[in-house]
Amino acid sequence: MADQVYDPARYDGTNASLTSAISADGMPRLGVRYRVPPRCGVAVRVMAGQIISIENTHGTQVCDFWAFLASDMGQFLSMAHCRTWLQSITPKVGDSLVTNQRQPLLAIVEDTSPGVHDTLMSCCDWPRYQLLGCTAYHDNCADNLRMALAAIGLVPPQVPDPFNLWMNIPVTRDGQTSFEPTVAASGDRFAMRALADCVAVMSACPQDKNPINGHNTAPTELHFTIQA
Amino acid sequence: MADQVYDPARYDGTNASLTSAISADGMPRLGVRYRVPPRCGVAVRVMAGQIISIENTHGTQVCDFWAFLASDMGQFLSMAHCRTWLQSITPKVGDSLVTNQRQPLLAIVEDTSPGVHDTLMSCCDWPRYQLLGCTAYHDNCADNLRMALAAIGLVPPQVPDPFNLWMNIPVTRDGQTSFEPTVAASGDRFAMRALADCVAVMSACPQDKNPINGHNTAPTELHFTIQA
Repeated sequence: MADQVYDPARYDGTNASLTSAISADGMPRLGVRYRVPPRCGVAVRVMAGQIISIENTHGTQVCDFWAFLASDMGQFLSMAHCRTWLQSITPKVGDSLVTNQRQPLLAIVEDTSPGVHDTLMSCCDWPRYQLLGCTAYHDNCADNLRMALAAIGLVPPQVPDPFNLWMNIPVTRDGQTSFEPTVAASGDRFAMRALADCVAVMSACPQDKNPINGHNTAPTELHFTIQA
Repeated sequence: MADQVYDPARYDGTNASLTSAISADGMPRLGVRYRVPPRCGVAVRVMAGQIISIENTHGTQVCDFWAFLASDMGQFLSMAHCRTWLQSITPKVGDSLVTNQRQPLLAIVEDTSPGVHDTLMSCCDWPRYQLLGCTAYHDNCADNLRMALAAIGLVPPQVPDPFNLWMNIPVTRDGQTSFEPTVAASGDRFAMRALADCVAVMSACPQDKNPINGHNTAPTELHFTIQA
């Protein structure tokens, strides 16, 4: 389906996600600090028991995060199922994140930030930027997911709703939401232990039409490490 | 994929969703009051401009609601995209609901209830009831969706997150949620105008392990009407 496969016809050739794979199949070297270029996505395989630690390098950047079960890409981290399981809209250290089949996939083991993350918003995509007034192609997290997986030879069955690390979406008592700047600090880390072999994808969100990546700061890089 | 196709091997034969289609292809007769049996799902085709009016017959029942674009079942109502578009976790009269491609699909035109509906929780499914302690098959909204569509010859590409009409999920200031009884009244109506031809599915949620369908009340029927 149109939603599932990265469409090169929409691509302007300047986004580096397709050429930023950490290895041909996404297997990492343990302990190596990898970079997610600004406005790009990178995929990595995380084996059960290993820890993926994501670093908000400059403190102003939102990371759209996805994870798929390695043995079945049709089973993936689902924010709606996480909320139902956790009875909370904001996962925190000690919580397990579950798939659309309610299988625990990742356990949150460290968060050095104030813990402001989002599970409510869809990832940005090309239709989103068209609605925001863009006429030329704009980098977006949905295409970053598709490209990051294509770069290691995989196709997502769909674009799941992301876990938006460090994304600040307050919810008022009457249910209204707003896009606010991150409250993370430079070097903040968010780490999860894999509970099953999975393929994780991180997108350094290219949103520059609202302040989620900071007022007057350009979308920037992220880093991550896989540890035994 | 396992998640997409209704699996008769899991089915105990007492759920009437497979035999409750309103017609062979889901086309309604306009103005007819149709019934969604207790614990079951029913699908209906709604043409652009027509209004689907759903009735909380006894006032205690949650309705899990989905809609798919008739011309492309891969495009469907998405709660995360609705929240992003509306900047609210609770749609209300006057709001348009959008698909996973951000296309407006339904406009809310009437809500006689206090307006307490949920966009945060996943629909109940067999894994959910296993986690709640069930060992024998339990009717569930995910299978109701699959069966209601199978009954008119369709297969959903996935089980999207539902729009949970009359489902009462308060969110506290610190982001905690809880399952509370509906605040609807007998005969309350929720009506939407289709903005494109779509296939709508309603499930009279069979959840009886928490009070969302009322304290000490059994899951019950719903009714609906399609009007020009």
